[in-house]
Amino acid sequence: MRIDNLQYANWSEKIFRQMRAGGVDAVHVTIAYHENFRETVLNIEQWNRWFEAYPDLICQAFTAADIDAAKAAGRTAIIFGFQNPSPIEDDIGLVEVLHRLGARFMQLSYNNQSLLATGCYEAEDPGVTRMGREVIAEMNRVGMVVDMSHSADRSTIEAAEISTRPIAITHANPASWHAARRNKSDEVIHAVTSRGGMLGFSVYPHHLAGKSDCTLDSFCEMIADAAGKFGAENLGIGTDLCQDQPDSIVEWMRVGRWTKQIDYGEGTASDAGFPPMPSWFNDNRDFDNIHNGLRVAGLSDADVAGIMGGNWYRFYADNFGPA
Amino acid sequence: MRIDNLQYANWSEKIFRQMRAGGVDAVHVTIAYHENFRETVLNIEQWNRWFEAYPDLICQAFTAADIDAAKAAGRTAIIFGFQNPSPIEDDIGLVEVLHRLGARFMQLSYNNQSLLATGCYEAEDPGVTRMGREVIAEMNRVGMVVDMSHSADRSTIEAAEISTRPIAITHANPASWHAARRNKSDEVIHAVTSRGGMLGFSVYPHHLAGKSDCTLDSFCEMIADAAGKFGAENLGIGTDLCQDQPDSIVEWMRVGRWTKQIDYGEGTASDAGFPPMPSWFNDNRDFDNIHNGLRVAGLSDADVAGIMGGNWYRFYADNFGPA
Repeated sequence: MRIDNLQYANWSEKIFRQMRAGGVDAVHVTIAYHENFRETVLNIEQWNRWFEAYPDLICQAFTAADIDAAKAAGRTAIIFGFQNPSPIEDDIGLVEVLHRLGARFMQLSYNNQSLLATGCYEAEDPGVTRMGREVIAEMNRVGMVVDMSHSADRSTIEAAEISTRPIAITHANPASWHAARRNKSDEVIHAVTSRGGMLGFSVYPHHLAGKSDCTLDSFCEMIADAAGKFGAENLGIGTDLCQDQPDSIVEWMRVGRWTKQIDYGEGTASDAGFPPMPSWFNDNRDFDNIHNGLRVAGLSDADVAGIMGGNWYRFYADNFGPA
Repeated sequence: MRIDNLQYANWSEKIFRQMRAGGVDAVHVTIAYHENFRETVLNIEQWNRWFEAYPDLICQAFTAADIDAAKAAGRTAIIFGFQNPSPIEDDIGLVEVLHRLGARFMQLSYNNQSLLATGCYEAEDPGVTRMGREVIAEMNRVGMVVDMSHSADRSTIEAAEISTRPIAITHANPASWHAARRNKSDEVIHAVTSRGGMLGFSVYPHHLAGKSDCTLDSFCEMIADAAGKFGAENLGIGTDLCQDQPDSIVEWMRVGRWTKQIDYGEGTASDAGFPPMPSWFNDNRDFDNIHNGLRVAGLSDADVAGIMGGNWYRFYADNFGPA
């Protein structure tokens, strides 16, 4: 089983065919960054068009079993998720509605303070809010996974503690390997993984030691090190692949509608756009490189199989519906 | 199997318990009259609250098989429908989205002209519109039933012809029995039933010969007559029960937001509210009266079983998903 637990590409038949060529059985795709409910539904409608247009390449997955069916049919299963709670607006009832429509991951905050939790770019992190506690309970009830990839540390640790089911950091790396605002301290990762939660390793260059020049060896040694620290069974891949997106998209990710200024996020004024991908991972056809690199780094066949998809599959099976 | 294919009650635990007491296995409930998409989702959220609050009494059904499961568990299955296409606004993509959320019937028009078809109170009926043809095809694709209960004759006949799958008149009676604006000519009923479509008999007094004074015998003889004309297998019940609703609701059904005047619809200035129900049908506990009355009217056990629910069940099994 090969699963990538985070992509936000500029979707096209070309990319769907690359998923098939790369043997990718399932992809968790972001369908909302700053969209409200109605806008998120429009994005779902766009995905429905793609499912109808490319039935031999992709299909939607609501459960882990749907991935088995997709794999048997030679398709890549698509799982919806949000990088921000904006799709539920201020309405907890939308958690169940959006779960019914297929949403299986939702970040409680994206860089900034949200109604639910604090983002990793805020100066202060007061932790999970009143509504945040209610929404975590509702997500636990219906089976939507709490994702804290872009959240601040205290909020993340509190979310892991409050949630009665395992949570996830779908796309980030250990800060001990590369000290970036979006990477996570061992304490934060431990709070998530020690409760059965998952960490998905990102290949987005701002999250990599050496950025675009990061070597495959360094990336895979980092993963082997994390397997020793946090348990290989709690690790997976979440590439954060933003293939074929124009630079206007990374600006929109960063500024949405919350500011009239430019916010460079992980970038800088002189390096504002999408950074070049590392040579060993440009698109969905390159997962073999990571697979082989993990073997070279000394991980067992079983651990590599888990990290390349088996662990996400098990996590989905446990967490994509009522407990 | 006992199924009522149209109710719009002022829902409460009392009514849900009456459904159980009346042995009602499934009810198609109206969740939108004039609501737009977001308002319809709010109504779905309210139903989700009821499903969570009364899990021993009701559950949502998406398929005929869900009704079997509900029946086995001693619950009444609830099926969502719209009396107007307002929930899809001007967006054909919302057909699939709302189908995913459980909508299984949608009227193409409610009394007035809609984007899709003409309602039965318009002076002119130009037939199914350009968007109407597209939406019928989309409803056919996903398995959402075209309902023409409040539509005008030409639009209804055209919808039956255009649709590649059977359509329904969920709640109306033959005009040959009681000449009311909302009742249907034999030609219209034949256009629907001759193509495998369904007619659901209403007990809403404005649709009854003698209105609130209509006798059970007269109602059941009318059904027996319709069985002879249109085939018993194409007939079912759609009571249009609006139990416990205040008169403000029938006014809202009629005027929505489309006029600032009062429109009395089937009522009159001196009789503007909900009329009293006939003595033999006040709530969900009274289906035995209809069942027994149909036997007295001379229908066979098999025909009575079909009309009381078996026919709707078969129709659901054939039409609630992709063909």
